[in-house]
Amino acid sequence: MKRKLRMGMVGGGLTSFIGPVHRKAAGIDGEIELVCGAFSIVPGESKATGDALYLNPNRVYETYQEMFEAEKKLPADQRIDFVSVVTPNHVHFGPSKMALESGFHVVVEKPISFNLDEAKELQQLVSKTGLLLGLTHTYTGYPLVKEARKMVADGKFGKIRKVFVEYPQGWLSTLLEGTGNLQASWRTDPKQSGMGGAIGDIGTHAANLAEYITGLKITEVCAMLNTVVPGRLLDDDSSMLIKFDNGASGVLMATQVAAGEENNLNIRIYGEKGGLEWKQEEPNSMILKWLDRPKEIIRTGMGYISQDAKNFTRTPAGHPEGYLEAFANIYRAFTKAVRDYKPGVKLNTKDYDFPGVDDGVHGMSFVQTVVESSKSNQKWTKLD
Amino acid sequence: MKRKLRMGMVGGGLTSFIGPVHRKAAGIDGEIELVCGAFSIVPGESKATGDALYLNPNRVYETYQEMFEAEKKLPADQRIDFVSVVTPNHVHFGPSKMALESGFHVVVEKPISFNLDEAKELQQLVSKTGLLLGLTHTYTGYPLVKEARKMVADGKFGKIRKVFVEYPQGWLSTLLEGTGNLQASWRTDPKQSGMGGAIGDIGTHAANLAEYITGLKITEVCAMLNTVVPGRLLDDDSSMLIKFDNGASGVLMATQVAAGEENNLNIRIYGEKGGLEWKQEEPNSMILKWLDRPKEIIRTGMGYISQDAKNFTRTPAGHPEGYLEAFANIYRAFTKAVRDYKPGVKLNTKDYDFPGVDDGVHGMSFVQTVVESSKSNQKWTKLD
Amino acid sequence: MKRKLRMGMVGGGLTSFIGPVHRKAAGIDGEIELVCGAFSIVPGESKATGDALYLNPNRVYETYQEMFEAEKKLPADQRIDFVSVVTPNHVHFGPSKMALESGFHVVVEKPISFNLDEAKELQQLVSKTGLLLGLTHTYTGYPLVKEARKMVADGKFGKIRKVFVEYPQGWLSTLLEGTGNLQASWRTDPKQSGMGGAIGDIGTHAANLAEYITGLKITEVCAMLNTVVPGRLLDDDSSMLIKFDNGASGVLMATQVAAGEENNLNIRIYGEKGGLEWKQEEPNSMILKWLDRPKEIIRTGMGYISQDAKNFTRTPAGHPEGYLEAFANIYRAFTKAVRDYKPGVKLNTKDYDFPGVDDGVHGMSFVQTVVESSKSNQKWTKLD
Amino acid sequence: MKRKLRMGMVGGGLTSFIGPVHRKAAGIDGEIELVCGAFSIVPGESKATGDALYLNPNRVYETYQEMFEAEKKLPADQRIDFVSVVTPNHVHFGPSKMALESGFHVVVEKPISFNLDEAKELQQLVSKTGLLLGLTHTYTGYPLVKEARKMVADGKFGKIRKVFVEYPQGWLSTLLEGTGNLQASWRTDPKQSGMGGAIGDIGTHAANLAEYITGLKITEVCAMLNTVVPGRLLDDDSSMLIKFDNGASGVLMATQVAAGEENNLNIRIYGEKGGLEWKQEEPNSMILKWLDRPKEIIRTGMGYISQDAKNFTRTPAGHPEGYLEAFANIYRAFTKAVRDYKPGVKLNTKDYDFPGVDDGVHGMSFVQTVVESSKSNQKWTKLD
Repeated sequence: MKRKLRMGMVGGGLTSFIGPVHRKAAGIDGEIELVCGAFSIVPGESKATGDALYLNPNRVYETYQEMFEAEKKLPADQRIDFVSVVTPNHVHFGPSKMALESGFHVVVEKPISFNLDEAKELQQLVSKTGLLLGLTHTYTGYPLVKEARKMVADGKFGKIRKVFVEYPQGWLSTLLEGTGNLQASWRTDPKQSGMGGAIGDIGTHAANLAEYITGLKITEVCAMLNTVVPGRLLDDDSSMLIKFDNGASGVLMATQVAAGEENNLNIRIYGEKGGLEWKQEEPNSMILKWLDRPKEIIRTGMGYISQDAKNFTRTPAGHPEGYLEAFANIYRAFTKAVRDYKPGVKLNTKDYDFPGVDDGVHGMSFVQTVVESSKSNQKWTKLD
Repeated sequence: MKRKLRMGMVGGGLTSFIGPVHRKAAGIDGEIELVCGAFSIVPGESKATGDALYLNPNRVYETYQEMFEAEKKLPADQRIDFVSVVTPNHVHFGPSKMALESGFHVVVEKPISFNLDEAKELQQLVSKTGLLLGLTHTYTGYPLVKEARKMVADGKFGKIRKVFVEYPQGWLSTLLEGTGNLQASWRTDPKQSGMGGAIGDIGTHAANLAEYITGLKITEVCAMLNTVVPGRLLDDDSSMLIKFDNGASGVLMATQVAAGEENNLNIRIYGEKGGLEWKQEEPNSMILKWLDRPKEIIRTGMGYISQDAKNFTRTPAGHPEGYLEAFANIYRAFTKAVRDYKPGVKLNTKDYDFPGVDDGVHGMSFVQTVVESSKSNQKWTKLD
Repeated sequence: MKRKLRMGMVGGGLTSFIGPVHRKAAGIDGEIELVCGAFSIVPGESKATGDALYLNPNRVYETYQEMFEAEKKLPADQRIDFVSVVTPNHVHFGPSKMALESGFHVVVEKPISFNLDEAKELQQLVSKTGLLLGLTHTYTGYPLVKEARKMVADGKFGKIRKVFVEYPQGWLSTLLEGTGNLQASWRTDPKQSGMGGAIGDIGTHAANLAEYITGLKITEVCAMLNTVVPGRLLDDDSSMLIKFDNGASGVLMATQVAAGEENNLNIRIYGEKGGLEWKQEEPNSMILKWLDRPKEIIRTGMGYISQDAKNFTRTPAGHPEGYLEAFANIYRAFTKAVRDYKPGVKLNTKDYDFPGVDDGVHGMSFVQTVVESSKSNQKWTKLD
Repeated sequence: MKRKLRMGMVGGGLTSFIGPVHRKAAGIDGEIELVCGAFSIVPGESKATGDALYLNPNRVYETYQEMFEAEKKLPADQRIDFVSVVTPNHVHFGPSKMALESGFHVVVEKPISFNLDEAKELQQLVSKTGLLLGLTHTYTGYPLVKEARKMVADGKFGKIRKVFVEYPQGWLSTLLEGTGNLQASWRTDPKQSGMGGAIGDIGTHAANLAEYITGLKITEVCAMLNTVVPGRLLDDDSSMLIKFDNGASGVLMATQVAAGEENNLNIRIYGEKGGLEWKQEEPNSMILKWLDRPKEIIRTGMGYISQDAKNFTRTPAGHPEGYLEAFANIYRAFTKAVRDYKPGVKLNTKDYDFPGVDDGVHGMSFVQTVVESSKSNQKWTKLD
C-alpha cells in the first residue's frame, strides 16, 4: 500500500483534550492523513472543527452513524482505512462497534467501553470480523517501557518479587466539577465515566503498565477506594495490595487528590537480582538497581538500548522524546498492522506491540473487581 | 550542672554496628562523656572494647548487672547520669529495667523491648520513678523532619488526606543469615528479634515517621507480610493499607528484599492545599508541593527554616548533615532534659522533642497488630 | 489561507539525520504538508526518498535548481509556499539563496551558511525580497526557554550578572570520522563544516540560547579552542570567558569530547534577586533560585506558566514534551508568519518568536570571532 | 599512646562559625579531647567560651602567646599534643608559627596564611621542626572524593582531558558587610582576608579539589575577577580558563554572587574513557559516565567502594554522611599521624591523606597568580 493511511475521527471537537493529541500523534510519522470526522454532537461544532483542520467539508459529518454510512459507500481509493474514537467513555462502544461492523479498523481511546459487557461484545466482534482494534494505553508506548519489558523478559532481574506502581495526580483536589470544568465534569460523572472514578481513569493505566512490563497478571486485589473531596460522585483515590500470578506481590495506588502532583505515573519493580524505576514525567531516564553493583541510569536511544526499544524512538540520544511520541508509537505499531492486514488472515496485536481488545476487556474487569473488593470486608478478591 | 554528662553503655562491643553510632552521636556536641560500659557478654570483649575507647579499666564491666551495682555505689560526682542500651532486641528490656531501678536515666535503642508486655512494664517503671527514657527512633532527628512536623502542625497543607511511607532495603535479598553474617542472623531470628522481621526492624521506623510528622495516629491496618526469601524464619517484606484518626488513609511499605535499595526510608504526605516529600538518603532537601504554585525545594539550615528545626542543625546551609547528626539530635534533646531533671518533678519528653517510652509501647503494639492483621482474612484490624 | 502550507525540502535523503526531524516537526500540528523535494545528490536517492514519503513522483527532483525552476512555474494553488533546507553546512547558502530569488520563503537548518560572507548576502536578500527566513536554532523552541526569557524580561531576577552556558557532548571522544561515520565525517571536515568544529556545531547553540533568554548580546570573548582527539581536523572542544553588553559576564563551554555526555545543553543565569537553571535533556523542568526563599521547580504547561510560553505547548502539564515539539514550535511560529505574510509588507520575525536571518549572521560572526580569539595571545577579542 | 590526644584551640569564641565545626569534628571519633584554648581577643569572651565548653578555667587563656607559654611548661602527661588555629585569615600565621616553635603540632584552618611569604615561612618551619601541620581543606575529606581520586589514579577514565570545577555561593549577592554581618565583614576586608576575596575564600577549595582528585597540577590560568556588588573591596566573583600539567584543560569558577546558591562546590572530570560528576551538597552520590555504557551512580559506603574510601566512612551505606564527617576525616588522618609521630623521624602527610603545608603554599601561590592574571591583558599566566 504505497500511500498514507486514511483516518476518520469520532469526537475530538474544538474543546476536546484528547482529540488533538490523537491527531498530532497520528501526524508525526507522515504515515496517516486525517480525511474525515464526526467531531461533536454540539450543533455546528463538527463543521467548525473540520474547517479548522482544513478538511473537505463533504467529509465532515454531524454524527458517527452518518459518517460510517457515507464512508463505506465511497470508492476504495477514497474511503477511510480506520477510525479513531476519542469521545467520552460512555460513547466509546457505539462508534467502535459500528466501525467494525462497517468494515473499518478502530483505534479507541481508553477505557475501551463503559462497562465489561460492552468490552466483551467488542472482543467478540473483533474476533468475528478479524479487523484490528488498537487501544491507546499510551504509557506503554514510551521506548524505555519497551526496554523495561524486554529486560524483565530476558531475566535480567531474575524472578520478579515486588511491584509498586503509582499514579498520583492532584488536579481533582478540589470540587473542580462544581466549577463547570468540562474535563472534571464527565470524569466524575458515573453516567459518562462508568463505575470507577480515579480507578477507571488512571488506575487502569497503572495496572496496565505493571502487567505490560512484568508480563505477569494481577490475580488478587485488596482495595480501598475513597471519595476524598466532599460532594464528588465517584472515587477520587485508591490504594490496593495486589498479588501476581507468579507469586509476586505489591501495591497499586492511583489518586487524583494528591495536591501538587501533575501526572506522576511511576513504577518500581524488584526481582531476585535487581530492579528498575521509571517515572512518566521524565520518561527518557530509567534507573536500574542491582544487588552488588552501582545503580545505572539508562537513557532513551543510547547505543546500549535494545533494538526492540529503539524501534520506537525518533530522535538520537540526548534529544528528549515525550508523550506525543509515546502516543505516536501506538499509531506507528497499529499502522504497521493495518498495512500487513489481509482479510481473512488473523493478525496478533502482540506481534506489533500495541494494546488491543483483550487489554480492554482485562481493564474493564480490573475496574469491576477493584470496586467489588473495595466494598468487601474480606481481604482478598480474585481478578479473572 | 556545669559539666559534661556521664554516660555508661550496655552492649556496643567491638563487632557491634549500632554501638559506635551511639558513641559518635553522643560525642559530637561535647556535652557527654562515656565513662563506663558492659560492652559484651563474650569473655574479654568488654575489656578490649573499654581499652580501645581509652576507658578507665576499673569501670569496664563484664555484665550490666555488675555495672549498675558498682556505679550506684560510686560518689555522686563520679557515677553515671544515664546509660545507653545498644544490645540486640531481646536484651533491651533487662538493662533498661535495672537502670531505672538503680536510679539512672536510660537511652535505649529501638525497639524498646522484645514484646509488648515488656514495653508496658518499662512504661510503668518510668511513670513510677519519674526518670527519663529516650528511644532512638533516629529518623525523626533530622532537621527537615522537624520542619515537616511543624509545617503540618501550622496547617500549611490543610487537613492531611493521604500518607505514603516506605522503607525499602535490599540487603536481605538473599539468605544472608545463612552465611554467618551477624547483623542478618539476629535480625532474622525470632528468638532475638521478636515476632516481626522487617516489620519490626524497619516498619516501625516508617510508622513512627508518619505519625511524628503528621501528628496523627494509625487506627487500622490491612497488612500483608511475606517471607520472600526461602528458608527465612521471619517476614522480610510487608505492605499495608492504613487509616488515621483524622480520616486520612495511606500505604505503609517496609521491605528488606528490594534488591538494589540501600536504606531508602521516604515519605509523601498530601493535604488539602499541598504536600511534602522527603527521603532519608538525601535528608537535607525536602520537596513541597502546592495546589496552585510551583513545587519548592527547602533545604536544611536555610534562612526560611523555622527556629524549631534550626535548633537541630549544627552547620550552615549548604554544609550537609547526615545520619550521625540526626542521631546526635536525640542525644541533644535527651541531654537537655537530663540537665533540667529534678527528682520528683515529671518532665514531658514531648517538650524536649525526643521519642520516649510511650513511643516504644506504641511501636510494639503496632508490630503485634500488623502480624495479627497479616494472618487475618478480614480486611481491617484495629490498632490501639 | 484556509489550507495547509505546502513545503518543499532540499536534502533530507534516506540516510539523513536532520531531514526526518524536520519532516516530523513540520507534520505534528497539521498545518504543513510536504509536497516536493530534492532530497539527495546521490543518484536515485532523491526518488527513493520521495517514494518512501508517498510523494507524487513528478515533484521529486534530482537537484534543488531543478526543483525551484519547476515549482515556480506551477500554478499558485499547487506550488510550494516555502522550502526547508536541511543539507550539510556548506550547502545551506545555495538553496536558500535560490529559494528567495525564486520567491519562496525559507526554513534553513543552522548554521545559516558556510561563512560570514554568505550569511550577510542572505541577510541582504531577505531585506530586498521581504520574504521570510527561519533558522532552526531548535533549543529556543522549548516552552520553558520561552518562560525563562519572559521572566528575565519582566525583571524577576533583577539585573543579570552571570551567565554560565554549556553544551557538552561525548560522541566525538574517539576519532569517529575515521570509522566512516557520516555524521562525524562532515562535521569534522573543514570543507563541509566551516572554520569551526564543536564551536560551530554546538557552541553557536549555546551562545544563541544565552542571548535569547537574557536578551543581552555577547560583546567580548576570551576563547580556548582545542583539538583533543589526535588526527581531527577541527576543534572538538571549546571554553571561553564572555562579557555581555550590560556588564554581565560568564562562561561558555561547548565540547564534543566529554565522554559519557549525550546532548547536555544547559544554562544557569544569576541576577540580583535570583536565577534559573535549565537542562535540555530534561526540558520540562526549570529550577528557579531566589535570594531569600526556597528554590522552585517550574514545569511546562502548569497553570502558573505565562501565556507566552503556553502558546508553545501541545499537551497538558505532566505530559512531557520533547525535542520534536521544540522543533515544531519553530515551524509553528514560522507558519503563522507565512500566513500573515503579504508581499511588500515587512514582518518582524521577533513578533513571531522564531530565529531569523539576523540570528544567522550573528552566529557566523560569533564563530569567526571565537576562532580569532583562540589564536590570539590577547585576553579579550571584541564581537561585533 | 593509649589515651585521647589533647587539643588546644586558638580562636573559635562564642560567635565563631568555624570554631564549633572544628570542635564537633574533632569530637566525633572519641580520639581527641579539647583541654585548653585562647578563644577570643574580646575581653572575657575566651573565659565565657571555656566555661561553655566545661574546660578547666586554669587552661583558658586570654592570648595564644600566653597559652603556648603556659602549655609548654606543663608536664608531658597534661600538656596539649596539638593546637587548632581557627582565627580569621590574617591571624593564621602567628599562632601556627608559635605553636611549631613551642613544639606543638598544628591544625590550621584554610588558607594557611595571609600571603605567600608567610606560607613559605611556615613551610620552612615544618621542615625544620619535623612537626605535623594539617590544613583543613575540608572538601577532600568526603569519602567519594577519595574514591574519585582512586578511580582516576587507577586509570578508570583513561587520560584526563577536561576538568570543570565550580564553587557558586549566593550569600554575598548584596552588600552584607554593610549590615554588620561578622562573617561577611572580615571575608571582604583586604586587611583580614588577604589579596583575594571569593578566589581566596572558596576558589582555593575548587582548585584544591580539582588537583586532589586528578593528581594533576594547574600550570596556567587565564582569569577574570570581578567585584560585582558595588561598594565591595575585594573580588566576589571569578572565572578562569585553566591548563594542567598533562595537557588537560578546563574551567574554574568561584563566585559568591550566584543568588540562590548555597555552597554548591561541584566538579566534573572527563577522560578518554569516561568521567565523573560530584556535588558537595549531596556528597554521598557520585555519577560516573562512560563512553559505551550506562551512567552509574555510586554511593558512599557501598560494597563496591574501595577500601581507601571506606576508611573514611563511619556509617553503613544508606546512612548519609555530611560535612562534619568530612571534616572529622581530616582530624582522623591527622590524629593517626600524630600517634605515629616520633621526634626526628619525618612523616609524609600524603601517606596519611590529609592536606598539609605544601598544599597551603600552593594555595597561596594560586591566589596570587590568579589576581595577577586577572589584571593582565595577556591571555595566560603561569602558576608555579
